[in-house]
This record gives sequence, C-alpha cells and structure tokens, in this order.
Amino acid sequence: MGLRFADPAAEAYRYPLLIRHLLQSALDTRSGNAIVGSDGRRLGYVDLERRIGRLACVLSASGVRPGDTVAVMDWDSHRYLEAYFAVPMMGAVLQTVNVRLSPEQIAYTVEDGGARILLCHADFAPIAAELRKRLPQIERVLSMHDGDPAPDSGDGDYETLLADGEDLYPFEDFDENAIATTFHTTGTTGLPKAVAFSHRQIVLHTLAVAMTLLGQPDGERLTRSDVYMPLTPMFHVHAWGMPYIATLLGLKQVYPGRYIPDRLLMLRDRESVTFSHGVPTLVQMLIGALGDRTLDADWKIIAGGSAFPVTLRDAARERGIRAYAGYGMSETAPVISVARRNEDDAGDAAALSCLAGKPVPLVQVRIVDDSLHDAAEGELVVRAPWLTMNYGTDHGASDGLWRGGWLHTQDVARFSARGDIVIRDRLKDVIKTGGEWVCSTQMEELVLRHPYVAMASFVGVPDPRWGERPVAFVVPRGEPPTIEDIHVFLAAFVADGQISRYALPDRLILVDELPRTSVGKIDKKALRGMVGAA
Amino acid sequence: MGLRFADPAAEAYRYPLLIRHLLQSALDTRSGNAIVGSDGRRLGYVDLERRIGRLACVLSASGVRPGDTVAVMDWDSHRYLEAYFAVPMMGAVLQTVNVRLSPEQIAYTVEDGGARILLCHADFAPIAAELRKRLPQIERVLSMHDGDPAPDSGDGDYETLLADGEDLYPFEDFDENAIATTFHTTGTTGLPKAVAFSHRQIVLHTLAVAMTLLGQPDGERLTRSDVYMPLTPMFHVHAWGMPYIATLLGLKQVYPGRYIPDRLLMLRDRESVTFSHGVPTLVQMLIGALGDRTLDADWKIIAGGSAFPVTLRDAARERGIRAYAGYGMSETAPVISVARRNEDDAGDAAALSCLAGKPVPLVQVRIVDDSLHDAAEGELVVRAPWLTMNYGTDHGASDGLWRGGWLHTQDVARFSARGDIVIRDRLKDVIKTGGEWVCSTQMEELVLRHPYVAMASFVGVPDPRWGERPVAFVVPRGEPPTIEDIHVFLAAFVADGQISRYALPDRLILVDELPRTSVGKIDKKALRGMVGAA
Repeated sequence: MGLRFADPAAEAYRYPLLIRHLLQSALDTRSGNAIVGSDGRRLGYVDLERRIGRLACVLSASGVRPGDTVAVMDWDSHRYLEAYFAVPMMGAVLQTVNVRLSPEQIAYTVEDGGARILLCHADFAPIAAELRKRLPQIERVLSMHDGDPAPDSGDGDYETLLADGEDLYPFEDFDENAIATTFHTTGTTGLPKAVAFSHRQIVLHTLAVAMTLLGQPDGERLTRSDVYMPLTPMFHVHAWGMPYIATLLGLKQVYPGRYIPDRLLMLRDRESVTFSHGVPTLVQMLIGALGDRTLDADWKIIAGGSAFPVTLRDAARERGIRAYAGYGMSETAPVISVARRNEDDAGDAAALSCLAGKPVPLVQVRIVDDSLHDAAEGELVVRAPWLTMNYGTDHGASDGLWRGGWLHTQDVARFSARGDIVIRDRLKDVIKTGGEWVCSTQMEELVLRHPYVAMASFVGVPDPRWGERPVAFVVPRGEPPTIEDIHVFLAAFVADGQISRYALPDRLILVDELPRTSVGKIDKKALRGMVGAA
Repeated sequence: MGLRFADPAAEAYRYPLLIRHLLQSALDTRSGNAIVGSDGRRLGYVDLERRIGRLACVLSASGVRPGDTVAVMDWDSHRYLEAYFAVPMMGAVLQTVNVRLSPEQIAYTVEDGGARILLCHADFAPIAAELRKRLPQIERVLSMHDGDPAPDSGDGDYETLLADGEDLYPFEDFDENAIATTFHTTGTTGLPKAVAFSHRQIVLHTLAVAMTLLGQPDGERLTRSDVYMPLTPMFHVHAWGMPYIATLLGLKQVYPGRYIPDRLLMLRDRESVTFSHGVPTLVQMLIGALGDRTLDADWKIIAGGSAFPVTLRDAARERGIRAYAGYGMSETAPVISVARRNEDDAGDAAALSCLAGKPVPLVQVRIVDDSLHDAAEGELVVRAPWLTMNYGTDHGASDGLWRGGWLHTQDVARFSARGDIVIRDRLKDVIKTGGEWVCSTQMEELVLRHPYVAMASFVGVPDPRWGERPVAFVVPRGEPPTIEDIHVFLAAFVADGQISRYALPDRLILVDELPRTSVGKIDKKALRGMVGAA
C-alpha cells in the first residue's frame, strides 16, 4: 500500500509505550497519595520513584542486564510493586513466580523462565535454598521480609541493599515490544506454560482497563479518590494489571502482605480501602470474616477467575461489598471484559453484575464454531493489543492458542440480548452426550438450589454408548441427598425446558469437599480421576 | 541492548493501533445509541458502520487510493464523522479544511495538502469551484448538503452516491504509523503550517483523553449516559478528538451543522445533550442565547483554545452550564491537560476549573528556560505519544518545534502548589520590559475588573529604552476610562505586589471591538499593527 508517513523533525521525540512512562505520568500529575507497604511503611510517589531507582541500581550491581530474567517470590507487597516497575524499566524481564505451586512446579517454572536473580520473601527461603541447589542458573537470592530480617538473608537483604544503594539508575528508552513480564499459566492439564507480555501490551492494557473501570456506573466505578488494595496475588497476571492502573492514576495503594482475612479487614478499616479485586472465593471469605458486621462504606471488588454467582453477589452487597464480575485469563494480560450495568439499569442489575459483560476498549470478541464461523453458542475467541503471542517455546500449544488468527479462550459463551458476553462453561468441561452439549456450570447452579446441597460440580465421564455421561459431585449440607432426590429435583427444570433430560446425572458422588487448583478453582481433572475410584 | 522479544505463534494477531479498531470496538460493545445527523437523520452504530463502508466504496470508485489526500469542507455533520473513519480506514489521509480562512488561505492549504478529492458542503460551492479552477490536482468534488441537493452537485451528491454504493469495503490492517489526518495550524503569524497525525497517535489520544474525562469528578465527568454534541468545528484538530472518543464509547451523538446559537439550544433541549466542548467565546455565546433561562439539566462543556475566565465559568454555572478548562493546541492532537478538581475540593474549585490543570495520562510536561533547564516560570514543553512530528515540509519550523527533544508549546506557564499547569501567557505575548516579563493575560484580567471595561487586551510594542512597553486596548462599557483611570485602578495591584510598576501601560487605546482570528482568538498581531495607526 502506498501509505504516507511523517518525516519527523530531527529531534522529535518518538514516544515508545514503556512501563517507565506510566510511572512518569503519575509523577507529572503530582499525586499526594501514599503507598502503604506490607510492612506498614508509607511511601509518597516520589519515594516510590526513588526506591525503584535504587532497586534497579541494586539489581544492576547484582549483574542484571537487559534481557535477563529476575524472578520474584513474595506476598502482595510494596516491594512487588517496585519490582513491577524497576525490572521491566531496566529492559529486564520480571518473572512472577506462583508461590502456591508445588516446589517441583516452582522449580520447573523458574528454570523455564531462566532467572539469574531471585527476590524471595523469607517465608519461601527453604524453597529458594532448594532452587539454588538444583538450578545453577540462579546466581543470587535477595531476601525480603516484613518484620525483622531473617537470620539468613541469602545474598543480601532487600531493604538493607536499597538503603545503601544509589537513587538514580539511568533508565533509557527502548523498543516497546521488548518483553516486560513472564509467568506460567496454572492450567489443570500438563506442565505450566509460559506466557509473556511486552511493555506496549502492558501500557495499552493499563489505559483500556483504566478507561473501563473509570467509566463504570456510580457506586461501581473507580475514582481518583478510591483507595486500592489488591486481593489477587501479585504473581497472578500482574494482579490483573491493577497496580499499574492504580499507579498511573496516583491512587492511594495498600499492600496487605500475605492474605489473612482479619488482617485484610483491619487494613480496610484503618486505610479506608474502597477498591479491590479477587476470585469469588475471596469475596466469600471476606463475608465469612465479617461475621455479623456490615461495612460503613462501600468496598468495590471486581470478582474474576471463575463464575461469580448472583447469590454471592447479593450476600456481598448486604455487607457493603459491591462486587461485580470481570473476565479474563492468564493469556490475556488478563482483562477481556467487565460486567457493566447501565447508569439507568435497575431490575436486572444483579444478574448483569455477574456476567462477563462488555469487552473493554480495543478488545474484539467473536463466538465461533470449530471452523471459526460465527455461532450463537460456541467458543469465545478474542483479539486485543495485549494477548500473549505464544506459550513460550511450546510451538504446538502456541499454534493452537492462535489458530485462525484469534486467541482461543477455551470458554463456551453466548451473547445476551444486550450484547453482554455470557460464559457458559469451559470448553473442556462441557459434557458432550448423545450429540447434545450439557453445560456443567448450568447443572451446578441448578443443583445448588437443592436445600441439602452446599457445593456441587459436574463432570463428563467417557461412555461407550453416549460419548460422555454427567456425574455429579456434591458436598451435602445436612441430610445427604440421593441420586433419586436429585433427579426428582431436576425434573422441574427438564419439564420447563431449561435443561435436556440427557443432562440428568448418571451418578451422584458425595464428598466432604471439592478438590481445588492452586488458584482456588475446582479441579475437574481430579474429580474425573475420582469417578473410577469412588 | 540485549532485550528479549516474543517469537509470535504463526497465526498470532499483531494488533496495530488503527482507527478502524475504535469503530470495531464500539460495534463489539453493541451500543444501542443513535447518531443524530446534521440533516436530522438518526443512525444506529451499525448504520454508521455501513455508511462508512459505502463512503469508502464511493471514494475508491472516485480513484482514492492509500496515501491519497481527501479534503473535507463541511459544518459539523454526521458526514464529517463518517469521513473521520472512512478516509483513514482506507489508508488515505483526511484533510480537514478550515472553512473560516480566507479563500486565498484555503487554496494554499488545499494545495499544500495535495487533495485529489474534495468533499464539500453546498455552502462552500463557490470556493470549491474556484479551487477546482486554480488547482489542477483536484479531480473530483463531491457535494454535501443538509436540505435539498444543490442545483449543481459537482461530480456527485454525497447521499445519492452513498445510497447507490456498496456496503462492504475491504478494509485491511496496515502500519499504525501511517498518517490518518492532516490540517493546517491557524497561527497569527506566517503561512498556515501543516500538522499530521498517525493512526497510532489518534488511537492513543482517544484512550488517554477518554480515560481523563471518564475520571473527572461527579458533575463534570463524561459517562456512558452522556449525549455528545461538538461545539468545536470538526475541521479544528478533529473537534478535539471527541468524535473518536464518543464513538469508541458508543455514546449518543448529535451533529449540529452550522453553529446557530438558537439551533444549538433547540438541539440541546430536543436531544438532551449533556456533553460538549468549545472555545470560551462559544460558552459566552450560549449564555447570551439562553437569555433569562436556566437549563433544566447540567450541560458539561470543556472550554479550551484560549484562557477560560473564572467570571465566565461562574456565569455559565448559574445557567446550568458546567464548564471547565482543557488545554492543548493543533500540534498536540490536541489535548495536553484538563482542569481537575478533586472529588473533595470545594472552596477553590471555581479557580481550579479554569486552570490548564493536570496532564492527561502519558503526557510528560516540563517548564523550562531557554536552555531547557527546569524553571519556576518559563515555557511549557511536552512529550506525548500523539504530537505532530513536524510542520509538513517546513524543516526550519519543525526543528524549532522539537528543539531539544521536547515539543515547544510557546506558552509560558508555572505549576500551582498542587501541581496544576497554570498558563500565564503566550511566549510571544509576554511583554519584555526593562528585564522584566509582564504577563499580558494577567494584566487583561486585572483591567477587566474595572467597572467601565468590557474587554481588554495588552500587547508589547517596541521601545528603544525598555525593549518593549505595554499598550492596553479596551472596549469600554459605559463611560470610557482614561489612561489615568487605569493607572489609578492598577495602583492597588502594584501596591500589593501582584504586578510590577513596569507593567502599567504607557498607552490606552479605546476600540469598539477586538480583532479576532479565524478561530475566535484575539488577534494580537492585528493589535500591534493598530498601535502605529491609532
């Protein structure tokens, strides 16, 4: 194409989209807000900038060069926030290690990420020591802590090194497509797979998601007066990108360290926290910790990572927690869409709060069949400027992820009448029986309405005649229900056409609890394994 | 630097920042809102998409290819909105012609832009006919109108051609750095100078400015329920980029055609317009047109293009117009900063509404002296991802604009205690007398407080002893003041240290009105010319 391009003036500044510019922008708007550290310290934004400079100097002195990986194992702390900026701003790659994985899996991800330096909270010192023995790539381990220094501070103590360091690191501009962050997805199948995000991707995610949150209706929208505290681990997809957003906006930020429910509530009260995000289980946990208490001021929480039930949304609302759903995944940086009421919605607002909702700006969404043709119900595929370009060096998985030029979410979805994305199920959890698709999440919702069912999960198990057949796992509440009870209960939904009679489970397995993955999702792979054993 | 880059999956979609994606994003969020055309028609967003496709087909059939320039001369219309998308989406360059320039200047800018096709409202048919005669480059003129077709519709009538056209133009992805738009600055000195903006620049401006407006405090913030109507001509810096923002957000939009005060008010009433933007003079005009009336619902208006006086802000507020200042220029796409109250501001909020305010995300600002060292008061220089890279082929002016790697705004500014940008004066309007800088705008504000002064402007005139000396132009209200009256009145401000005694004007020239440029700013060049003649 014969496009036209500008011939820039000799000294014209060609602005690359770098994480450094998010910080600079926060400084240029001169936020007077504080960042409350996990050790209780209070930093201004100028202090934050200084500490980021010092951390970069320390890392540089430890041998970190552009392109190197720096791995972090920490709870949600101001140190993590500093690493979110300092490491990528040096041109190095921040690896956020999932500390909830098994030591074996952690070793795999750290080796795969190629980190030479590990920033490690004292709580994980034994794992770090083991890693150091097993992985010759690791040259240094810097120790972090929120109280007194650990007796063994590895190759140096974070705060001591920062205190002794220089303020000014000569951060430079570079290619915005350089990788800024990497981490591993915690899927329920196979080895953890690496995803990676460039500076450009993170900056664009920050702008578009910030725009979305600022544009939410009253009572749910993020404002510059909000006080932010993450309730998603910072190792998990950049805590949904929110620390970058909070910093760009110059918000007051509160970093809670390890999640201890009473401590989270204490911090909320003391620091007037008003904006957080977490998995639905976390919202449930906060409700439990609140006991009889109702909050004196609304706490807005975006709930994501798994389906957000309307019942949970309503229970939270009664306590002053205004939670609504967001949708995304590790591969998508992560935000794809956010539940959106309209300013004038009333009646059906509760249900709207729990949908995957509307795509954030620049996200393109389609619902397609196997041949990538548009379908009323099918796989949700997306395009956005912030999607991982691959699964590390796993070319087969990378090609599958991007088949046909769209990122495959592996989620089955449809659009509501007003265009909200409605996630129906994981593609792999859909139970394919006799040519019909049974949506496991729909079955779970229906069975949960039975008075003696506390929790429920449906999986498909191979069947020679029907392909697959549904099996129900139930955690009973009070008198354990029988399979007949469940059939009788579900008959009403068959009768009114909500579900097909093929969806009735063949077996009911009672369990004390449902197995969960490291990020708190129900582990359906484990459930399928239990079918033969039960 | 040894940066690391991802090796994308074979089919991974590398998302370029293209104007096309703003439109696609609006469609993916399924806005149910209408776009009200300047001819009264109502379009849905799907209709808009179809018409953009048709316009591209019509232009393509007229010979427009990527890299070609398409010039538009129109009032603020749905057609202009269509051209904002269709022309750049083809890879062609949209030239927005300033119809308020003299025919000579219009001819210069159209020739300089190199347009082969001109989309021209019937009101400008005589100018188009003249252009066609003088500029052999122009191959076709398509005629546009809001009522009946003009008797002579040039080489075709816009609506007829669209009605007869195909829906689907095969829009493709291309380099995001391709030029999307160009227009000429209307400086008060020299020939109009061309600026140009790429797709990437416009997309980033759209995101960052949208984020800013959505993040304003209650009563001033843009919401998804707002109804947008431009009150800045669409030939002027993409109407401040707002049509792109309104479209991305899927807002209801109202295009008013030629600005006729009563018609603007009628449209506001009929379509429930709540969000606009315009020069302070426009706000003044609306107040005049309202007469004794107060609006029944707030009308948020961003006022920019020249200083926004607190008195005007207060007068507007009394009528239900909640106006606040924005700052920018043709060279900056245009938004650099927006006045920002905090949610909890009260007392000094009026003054805060009138400052240039806080930079929008990604904008970096400095205040510097001639050597580009930081200064308490000096020239405001900026960096942002959406600044023109040059003044067309005028290499000298381009190099001056970008001297030292920062874009020179030619505005003198300082920061307020809370970090707001406070514009003091145009660098060329600062009156340099006896080694002191006298801020002409400050003098104008002070003299305006005199009961017999309706309007005032200060210019510096050459003086052999002092370098320059101030001269005051005054439009009197009631009894015309004398130079002695003004000196007595200003003595209080000298006494309390607000101004230096060197700032007292040497001469007072009474005039019936102040000369203005094509965009409504006071023409100080003309005033300086009048000093000798008066």
